[in-house]
Amino acid sequence: METLLKEITFNADGLVAAIAQQFDTKEVLMLAWMNREAVEKTLATGDVWYFSRSRNKMWQKGESSGQTQKLVEFQIDCDGDTLLLLVDQKGVACHTGRRQCFFRTFKNGKLIENQPVQVDPDKLYLA
Amino acid sequence: METLLKEITFNADGLVAAIAQQFDTKEVLMLAWMNREAVEKTLATGDVWYFSRSRNKMWQKGESSGQTQKLVEFQIDCDGDTLLLLVDQKGVACHTGRRQCFFRTFKNGKLIENQPVQVDPDKLYLA
Repeated sequence: METLLKEITFNADGLVAAIAQQFDTKEVLMLAWMNREAVEKTLATGDVWYFSRSRNKMWQKGESSGQTQKLVEFQIDCDGDTLLLLVDQKGVACHTGRRQCFFRTFKNGKLIENQPVQVDPDKLYLA
Repeated sequence: METLLKEITFNADGLVAAIAQQFDTKEVLMLAWMNREAVEKTLATGDVWYFSRSRNKMWQKGESSGQTQKLVEFQIDCDGDTLLLLVDQKGVACHTGRRQCFFRTFKNGKLIENQPVQVDPDKLYLA
């Protein structure tokens, strides 16, 4: 683990950007942030953990929605400031109920939706 | 253009993260940053421009190496703080001469290279 951690360049807030990509279809699902502990916990458990900047705490992807991510492969880029996580995403990655967070395409001066809502977001976060 | 720009959440430094993905093979090539002007110039020209945090200026991908990126599709995520650029990457995206910047995989406690050097990096940046 230390071999990896010393190659990661955490930013001034102690975070590193992490792109999640579905391992088989190669869909880019989302981008989130990890702190050192999230990296360690993800590698130790195989469940993907991130760090929420707005809530200022770690969270397991899917902990409240059930839409979890299992780690398949952990990659790091040339300068160590971005991670690429190949994952197996259960259901939808986006809190809007879509598979990918990148569901808007800018074309001809307009933003158009490029994928459907698969799950009613109100049903993703039942108390 | 304003329709898009008002949806982008630039950070305190005026930047937004941009993931570049090869449009047909779906390889994730790199992550870099764009300022407002880089977004505008990319959409206006079809050549991908980024903002270098270390050099504090805009740069066109491939301007010195010849390994340019042509924009195919411009996507934005749910909360507007990450872009996904579907591009056509000429040659290699990484300054190390590899196709993708994510050329290291962490496995069994070690970092292993997951792709070969395709171009001698010394030949990428001839003066």
